[in-house]
Amino acid sequence: MSFCLKCGQQGQILIPEGDQRERLVCASCGHIHYENPKVICGALVTHEDKVLLCRRAIEPRYGLWTLPAGFMELHETMEEGAARETWEEAEGVVNIEQLYCMYNIPRIGQIYVLFKGNLQDGQYGAGSESLECGLFREDEIPWDELAFPSVARTLKHYFHDRQQGQFTIHLETISS
Amino acid sequence: MSFCLKCGQQGQILIPEGDQRERLVCASCGHIHYENPKVICGALVTHEDKVLLCRRAIEPRYGLWTLPAGFMELHETMEEGAARETWEEAEGVVNIEQLYCMYNIPRIGQIYVLFKGNLQDGQYGAGSESLECGLFREDEIPWDELAFPSVARTLKHYFHDRQQGQFTIHLETISS
Repeated sequence: MSFCLKCGQQGQILIPEGDQRERLVCASCGHIHYENPKVICGALVTHEDKVLLCRRAIEPRYGLWTLPAGFMELHETMEEGAARETWEEAEGVVNIEQLYCMYNIPRIGQIYVLFKGNLQDGQYGAGSESLECGLFREDEIPWDELAFPSVARTLKHYFHDRQQGQFTIHLETISS
Repeated sequence: MSFCLKCGQQGQILIPEGDQRERLVCASCGHIHYENPKVICGALVTHEDKVLLCRRAIEPRYGLWTLPAGFMELHETMEEGAARETWEEAEGVVNIEQLYCMYNIPRIGQIYVLFKGNLQDGQYGAGSESLECGLFREDEIPWDELAFPSVARTLKHYFHDRQQGQFTIHLETISS
């Protein structure tokens, strides 16, 4: 990344006046390109005593199981992003119940915002980014084949909270 | 925004294969530039029965009062971002107590993540982006001179919750 989005000329990595961090600054027009963390929105979607998981048809972690989640888009809310991803990846309609888990992943410049919701009519399919989707009971979860640490954490929180009878919001930092 | 960050050649606005949204795609090297929402981190910082506000020395909303908050940076957590902004804008050290308010602002592609915390030793100053900072009791808040809707909402939630004796997490969408 070293050219200017605005004018196409060569950029320089330097700390702009009044800033504390290195940015890509255009040597020609002076435009500063800021890179900031991205938001991943998703949902832990339940139906009866089961949780909806998707087996990834894309890299990274092709073939492993994940929660429906993906990059939040401009001009949508976090809840809309979570519902859109549930539709795109699992062809399911989620009724959002509450904000549930948030994760900082500073190493890769991401934050996760995951909602808890239920699957409307228990209906789902498999979107183009999924090899297959499925509803899993606690003792059916493929713990050794989960795609990301955030997925395992969220599932553990869910089964623990469900046993306790109270779903609190979990905010954690994943440093691995 | 119409040139490629990677190679500097002209980009085109089009929907890439397998995508549903228009992106800036390089006509030469094929690099896709994704624009996603930005995260604003900040804090409602209290000391005794007062709240810390900063009078903006920068546009937009020069001269109006705000909570310490700003763009989350790469490789920091949301809590670190809130603490950094409190230091940069108000020269205060905040002890984060809890996640407090989250706002979707889809019109401008932003989400706000605000924590509640207390001001260490009651000490503060004014950073370079602030004309002045101050601690305000509820009846001293300059309601007509607040910089952003998110500031007014958060202060209202705080004084309401304080009276109730319970600080719940508020997740809302600001559509104005």
